[in-house]
Amino acid sequence: MTTTAEEQARRNFPRGLSQPETGFRFSMDALLLAAFAGREQVRGRVLDLGTGCGVVGLGLALDHPDFFGVGLDLNPDMLRHARENVRRLGFDERFALLRADVRGPWGLAPESMDLVLSNPPYRDPGRGRTCPDESKTLARFEHRAGLSDFVRAAGYLVRNRKSCAFIHLAERIDELLDLLRASRLQPKELLFVHQRHDSTARLVLVRAFKNGGAGLAVHPPLILHEGRGSQTRLTASALSFCPRLACNADPGNRNSRTNGGNSKKP
Amino acid sequence: MTTTAEEQARRNFPRGLSQPETGFRFSMDALLLAAFAGREQVRGRVLDLGTGCGVVGLGLALDHPDFFGVGLDLNPDMLRHARENVRRLGFDERFALLRADVRGPWGLAPESMDLVLSNPPYRDPGRGRTCPDESKTLARFEHRAGLSDFVRAAGYLVRNRKSCAFIHLAERIDELLDLLRASRLQPKELLFVHQRHDSTARLVLVRAFKNGGAGLAVHPPLILHEGRGSQTRLTASALSFCPRLACNADPGNRNSRTNGGNSKKP
Repeated sequence: MTTTAEEQARRNFPRGLSQPETGFRFSMDALLLAAFAGREQVRGRVLDLGTGCGVVGLGLALDHPDFFGVGLDLNPDMLRHARENVRRLGFDERFALLRADVRGPWGLAPESMDLVLSNPPYRDPGRGRTCPDESKTLARFEHRAGLSDFVRAAGYLVRNRKSCAFIHLAERIDELLDLLRASRLQPKELLFVHQRHDSTARLVLVRAFKNGGAGLAVHPPLILHEGRGSQTRLTASALSFCPRLACNADPGNRNSRTNGGNSKKP
Repeated sequence: MTTTAEEQARRNFPRGLSQPETGFRFSMDALLLAAFAGREQVRGRVLDLGTGCGVVGLGLALDHPDFFGVGLDLNPDMLRHARENVRRLGFDERFALLRADVRGPWGLAPESMDLVLSNPPYRDPGRGRTCPDESKTLARFEHRAGLSDFVRAAGYLVRNRKSCAFIHLAERIDELLDLLRASRLQPKELLFVHQRHDSTARLVLVRAFKNGGAGLAVHPPLILHEGRGSQTRLTASALSFCPRLACNADPGNRNSRTNGGNSKKP
């Protein structure tokens, strides 16, 4: 039984989500992951690993009423926002939040999840740009796990023959596939995401099955934008794949790029 | 100095290549590999690993006059056809043929190649369909190496910081990337090949550098065909990528699919 306020929050999703003013904010990548995972029937127990403000798991919960979600994160600030979002959307009874390090211990039984979703950090700790303010860098990296930690956790927590879905940088696809196989997560589907039809892929969506057989499908790619300059807009196929990408499109502005304000990295 | 007959053979390439009437015949995949490898400047010493009738190395030699090619195969029948093709095209002075097992010994010095090309068998020995005639199956599989053997040979024979180019089934991309990394061949470019814009990828082209750094580019995919039924034709982008794909198009027949008669597997 949802209240009017909850119904409105659900209709507006992902607009109006509570999240930090600065720091890690959800991006369109989270919406893509929820849409990708939701192409299959989703039921049972679903873990959103590194849930942040909860956008991936909550997005899936909105479309698939038949599962119980668990959002896991180490950052108490993010969990505060996630709790607020769970409440606003009326999911208190089917979305739990859990404070734990992705590196474990998680307080969850092995092979207890029917689906694990993750939009992990795109750069591992100690790699790439660091923050000019060193104390801030330490604070940011100290608790941040690398891609291998996310994959290992997923492999440990997902049930045999059940699946995990990840979104990550296409330029790291070789490393991601390698880590998945090392955790007995057999990649079965790849979907590359290109900003434009003629650009290299920026992202890849991967579905992997625990102890699955060999052989994977590389889907036709998802092309996000077409048009140039102020005529730039989401493609029909991107909006069909994930209607919520339109959330950042400003009808008063013909520039409907969606990742303007919602950057995963500050 | 080429003769008129050689000039004509070069213009006709790959039409008119000598190859067995039955058994392993070259496919469009070989032409795609030569086109892909030829997107970069090619010079020095180039190895075509499992050369068959020589189509990959000879195709590249036609477009890039500045290298010396070596075609390696174990099958004396195929090498006989390859020798005939080298002669017809007038490449006796810059394309050598070598009988050796892909599993080694190759009689070639380690790290002696500036580029290694390979269009390996798509199914490993002992996997997939076998031939109803058991003696034929044994004969066919006895000398056939698996994907891991091809990658290992390439990694051993290519010079440090130089590259290898492979074409293989997209459904085995995870395994291929894994093998490449195990041989210190860092994948740097992936190009998926789809039969049609809405079909899953059938093939993948990979360029990998020996001891290269991390991070790879996933190019916009190559879509081979458009149109339906008798209107099926190669796309403009496929013909631009590899003009020789038109070799099988019959101008008297509007069906210009190119892989009709030239199947890698009999």
